[in-house]
Formats: sequence, structure tokens, C-alpha cells
Amino acid sequence: MTKPTISVQLSTAKKQKPEADKLEFGRTFTDHMFIMDYTAENGWHDPRIVPYQPIEMDPAAMVYHYGQSVFEGLKAYLSSEGRVLLFRPEKNFERLNKSNDRLCIPRVDPDTVLEGLKQLVQIDKEWIPQAEGTSLYIRPFIISTEPYLGVAPSNMYKMLIILSPVGSYYKEGIRPVKIAVESEFVRAVAGGTGNAKTAGNYAASLKAQEVAESKGFSQVLWLDGVEKKYIEEVGSMNIFFKISGEIVTPALNGSILEGITRNSVIHLLKQWGLSVTERKISVDELVQAHKDGLLEEAFGTGTAAVISPVGELIWKDESLVINNGQTGEIAKRLYQTITGIQKGALPDTFGWTVEVDKVSQSC
Amino acid sequence: MTKPTISVQLSTAKKQKPEADKLEFGRTFTDHMFIMDYTAENGWHDPRIVPYQPIEMDPAAMVYHYGQSVFEGLKAYLSSEGRVLLFRPEKNFERLNKSNDRLCIPRVDPDTVLEGLKQLVQIDKEWIPQAEGTSLYIRPFIISTEPYLGVAPSNMYKMLIILSPVGSYYKEGIRPVKIAVESEFVRAVAGGTGNAKTAGNYAASLKAQEVAESKGFSQVLWLDGVEKKYIEEVGSMNIFFKISGEIVTPALNGSILEGITRNSVIHLLKQWGLSVTERKISVDELVQAHKDGLLEEAFGTGTAAVISPVGELIWKDESLVINNGQTGEIAKRLYQTITGIQKGALPDTFGWTVEVDKVSQSC
Ligand SMILES: Cc1ncc(COP(=O)(O)O)c(C=O)c1O
Ligand SMILES: Cc1ncc(COP(=O)(O)O)c(C=O)c1O
Repeated sequence: MTKPTISVQLSTAKKQKPEADKLEFGRTFTDHMFIMDYTAENGWHDPRIVPYQPIEMDPAAMVYHYGQSVFEGLKAYLSSEGRVLLFRPEKNFERLNKSNDRLCIPRVDPDTVLEGLKQLVQIDKEWIPQAEGTSLYIRPFIISTEPYLGVAPSNMYKMLIILSPVGSYYKEGIRPVKIAVESEFVRAVAGGTGNAKTAGNYAASLKAQEVAESKGFSQVLWLDGVEKKYIEEVGSMNIFFKISGEIVTPALNGSILEGITRNSVIHLLKQWGLSVTERKISVDELVQAHKDGLLEEAFGTGTAAVISPVGELIWKDESLVINNGQTGEIAKRLYQTITGIQKGALPDTFGWTVEVDKVSQSC
Repeated sequence: MTKPTISVQLSTAKKQKPEADKLEFGRTFTDHMFIMDYTAENGWHDPRIVPYQPIEMDPAAMVYHYGQSVFEGLKAYLSSEGRVLLFRPEKNFERLNKSNDRLCIPRVDPDTVLEGLKQLVQIDKEWIPQAEGTSLYIRPFIISTEPYLGVAPSNMYKMLIILSPVGSYYKEGIRPVKIAVESEFVRAVAGGTGNAKTAGNYAASLKAQEVAESKGFSQVLWLDGVEKKYIEEVGSMNIFFKISGEIVTPALNGSILEGITRNSVIHLLKQWGLSVTERKISVDELVQAHKDGLLEEAFGTGTAAVISPVGELIWKDESLVINNGQTGEIAKRLYQTITGIQKGALPDTFGWTVEVDKVSQSC
């Protein structure tokens, strides 16, 4: 197979890199970006790496009005031997294409975008932070660009990949969070866009998040939109519980995002010989299990935090403290194993990491 | 009250205007646009009219990723005496602010934006087409612009107003459409964003629309997301039925957009002494009424088409032909009355039209 050709225009001015201990999430971007265009006549074309720069768009560009937009999130890590590792990137592009299908956006060729991503990360390699818990966050996204005020799929799109060096999600190591179960607002419903990674889902979630934060909770746990009874997921994480020795997570039902960390966690738990079940979990079941002393652990899974232990759940006026508000054994083991594999410090028995090789740039 | 000051920079080059009989919906834009910025420090500031031009934004601008975006749609009409009339524009800005609340976007000052809108329309007045059924479509919208990859309300926004001369929605006069009742996909659910005019709702609707069009239907009629049983609205219209002499429309339940045409229709029907009820309407009720020969009329209401008679409803494999596929009496009378008021040809007893006065531009 011939490699797709990505043209490269290097930046002449290099930006200052942030200090390692001052890294924030998603505020600083590297020197370059990947960009590719779509038109109805030419399909996806002209994949290229260019200096990071503003994009110029007509005010009638459809994304501003009708929100056709999908994105992904993954990370590049620097191993202690200086190898640059991606974690299951092909999964992200597979999911991007699923999101594309739901939003009527033309699919991208996974080989081209993975090649573009690798070259981009290689070019901006010096931006990958080294310290424990840090990484280079990668944001591929697609937006509709046709200047047309009609509710219909756009005939023009842009795909971009931008990179942001990010700090440790937990400044003082892995730390349990307090999460409110949302009883008023709904994020997604069966038949909607909940299992696509599209902008509108996140816009819809802001109000509940704002209310939760004002009450001192870090995130909301969404319930299903139909019965408002079954657990779905957290803002940008899937969720797992250990109830009376059984590890459970909500089954993929069409309104939950199919998290890649979720998938990796399920594989690891099975490898360790632990029982893990994907099924419906009602909030009532959690409350009862807690009452009976059987709600042993809870943790979220997602690219940003990897594993996020939940120390307390709030449901209406009830507080469910889990594992005395401490990080559970399973959460700890998963965090260490996954971050170890991601950083190349532990053996990668599943073949999850993809090394960015020292490509010779055609510039 | 002092008028808000809107600075004006006129375009030096004027674009060619489209020919009256070649007007499409939402493809051509006028010479100028309104723009205003928001920052956390300065609030909404610098309202100005500038030549229509591309906007330049960071690829990390939040709207591309998390979809904070709201919009409105209204029209300016030229009366036969050359007066420029807006139809209930204050209602649009009231609704814009409601959408803002739901999307965690800071409210705008309705006086400032209405003044900006009037001056903009006055400046681009020559773009308002004259022919029967034509008008100048007005699109105010707000997008989040802060370059930040975190799921949180943005600290920076832009509001714009752009204008597009549009042709008659019905080339050969008002014409009944064929609409499919959607049984798989869901547009909105209680607790979601259905009653806000935000981009994500429209993105979510494209897939069902695509399927419906491929089967020869012009639009889909959405059911509620919870029971998939009750009628909500059409793609960009509210819906009314006449069942056994009673005119009914779905009650505002939080997942339906509160249409301004819908509101005007209710006022008119009451003025005419006709009974109109806002209530739950199940698809089963419609099927039964049709069977019994009691489903007498159906029509959609919205800014684009004003009144759109429905000649046929498709539910699963059943076809419900309404009024022999002809435009009903009520739809016809509403269309003539509303467009008459909008154009200044009929007396405006409700005080719905707002004249754009010959402002002296401060340029
Ligand atoms: C809504 C939502 N759920 C779950 C996840 C977790 O997915 P992943 O593990 O692929 O990061 C994310 C983040 O990507 C998300 O945005
Ligand atoms: C989803 C939706 N419903 C209803 C309407 C009708 O609203 P209005 O009569 O204010 O144009 C519109 C169009 O604006 C719409 O987009």
C-alpha cells in the first residue's frame, strides 16, 4: 500500500512552549496543524500540514447555523526512551467515521488521516511534555463550511487536527471526584445523537454542568432521556461500578458514547479474570446497593483523565459516599496499567500503542 | 431613551444583485453585516455594521467543538408604497435570549440589536426584492469564539446579522407538501434543547430528513422523544390540524420551538372566532380521525414558508391524504392574511409590523 501524500509547509516562527508545571488543559496549541478539504466534486482532498493559524470562513458557513460538526480526542505520550506513542488511534478514526454517518458528513480515509496525524505529531514532537501525567492532547475535528442557510447536509467541509500539550489531570495524583446524578436536564435520547461525538451534545450539557458546579460537584452523571431512571455516562467519561463484587457498566444503547478507554478497561478486567457486565443499571439499584453496603467502587473512564475514581454520588438530596471517598483498588490498578501501557513502561500485550516513526518530511 | 450607537463602515464595492426570478433561499448575501463582540471583561461591545466579509477564527474556537451557537430567522418586506417592514422582530430577540439562557450564552440587549438590525436593513434596502412572495431573509446568530478545548461555557462570543434576498417559497403559489411521521430518529426530548434555536438541533435532524427525502417526502414530522407517540413539529415549522371542526396544535412542552408564526396564527384564529386548542396530539388520534373522515386540514407554520399546507401524511406504511391533497380554507386564509399584514397590504390590527425608518447613518 502506498502512503498517502501529505504536503508540509513548516512554520518559520516557533512559539514559546509553556513551562511544564504551568500546563493547563486545552489552552496552548503547537506550531502546526493538519488540514484537509472536502467538496462534492473532489471529495476529501489536499491533506496538508501548515503553520497553526486562524481559519477564515464565510459568516453563512453552515457549521455556525446547523451545527454539522464531529470531533475526536486522543493523546500522544513520550516514553522514557524518547519513543512517541499513540494509544489506539485507529479506534478514534473508526469512531469519527461513525459520528460522520450520523451527522451526514462524508467519511474520511482512516489511513490518510492517521498518516497526517503521525506526521503532525512528529513535526511538533518537541511539544510533547515529559513529566509524569502529562501528554500531547490531539483534537481531530470536521466542520461544515458551505455558505448556505438551508437545513441540509453541507457540500463542503474542512477536517483539521490541532495539538495541545496538557498537564496531569490530577495535580496531586489520582483523586476521587463528587458527581451529581442529573434529574432535570437530558443530554441525549435513543434516536438522537448521543453515541456520536458531535458539538451539539456538549452544548446541550453545559446548563446542567453549570448548575452542578455551582453546588460544588465536579460533573453530572446523566440518566437516560426516556425514563430518567438508567445510568448513562458522565460529561466526558463512561462510568463503571463495582456492586457486590461484580463490575458493571451501562450497555451501549445508542445514546452513550462508545468510549475507547471504556473498551480498554473491559479488555483489561477480563484479562485479569474479573467479571464485567455491560447492562442497564438504574439509579435505584445504586441507591439500594449503597444502603446494603454493596456499592464498593465507582469510576469514570475517558481519554482526558484516563480513570477518575468517584468518591461520592449525589442523587436528589441523598449523598452516596463510595469506598469512604477513597480511590478503589480496581480504579488504581486500571490507572497504573493503562498509563503504563500508554507511556511504554508496561508490556503492551494487546498491541494498543502505535509508534510515531521518524518520518522523513517531504517539505 | 438614547439610541444605542452603532458604528458604520460602508462597503466601497457593491455586489451584483441576483435577478428576481432566480432567487434561491439562503445562497446570496447582501453588501453589509452587523457584528458585535462579547468578552467576560467588557460584556457585549462594539456593535458595528461593516462590509459583508469572512470571519477569522482560531481553529480551537469553542463553537467548532462544543457547539454553543444560537440563531434566529425573520424577514423584511417592501410594501407597495416602498415602506420597509419587519414582522414582530422583538419576538425574535426575546426568543434569542431564551435560547441564550439554555445554551449558557450571555443575553444581548434587545434594543441594541434591533437598532443594529434596522440600520443594516436600511443600508442594504436595495437588496429587498419586490416580487410577490419574495423578501429579505434576516439571520441573527451568536457563536462562541474562545480558543479553548474544555467543556464549559465560552468567555468570548460574536453576534452577527446577515441578510439574504429570498424568492417565493412556493414557485407556483402555496402548494401542499407530503410529510413523513418519523418513527426512528428523535430530534429533541424534554430536558434537552428542543425549545432553543440552537445549531445542534438541526444537525441532529439531518439524517431523518435525508431518509425522508430519499423516499419522496419533503419533510419529517417529529414525535416526542419519550413515548414516540405525540406530535411535536416539522423540520422548521410548527404544525396545526383541524379535526372535526376544532383547530389543534401541540402544546409548548419544552421540546418544541415556540414559533412566532404559530403564535400569530393562534391570535388570528381567535380573532376570527375559531376555536383553537394547544394540547397533546397523538399520532394514533390523527390516524383514527383520518379513518373517521374527521381530519379536515393540516398545515405547518414558520417564517420561511409562512403557511405550508400538508396534503399527505405518511405514518409507517399508511398514507393519510388530507383534504384531497388540496390546500384547505383555513391555511389559505391564514396565508393571505399574514402575508398581507407583512407586506403592509392589509390593516395591522395587532401592531405586528415595525417600520424601518429612514435612519440618518453616522458613517
Ligand atoms: C460524552 C463522552 N463520553 C465518554 C467519553 C470517553 O471516551 P474515550 O474513552 O474514548 O475518551 C468521552 C470523551 O471522549 C465523551 O465525550
Ligand atoms: C424547529 C423549528 N420549529 C418551528 C419554527 C417556526 O418558527 P417561526 O414561526 O418563528 O419561524 C422554526 C423556524 O424558525 C424552527 O426552526
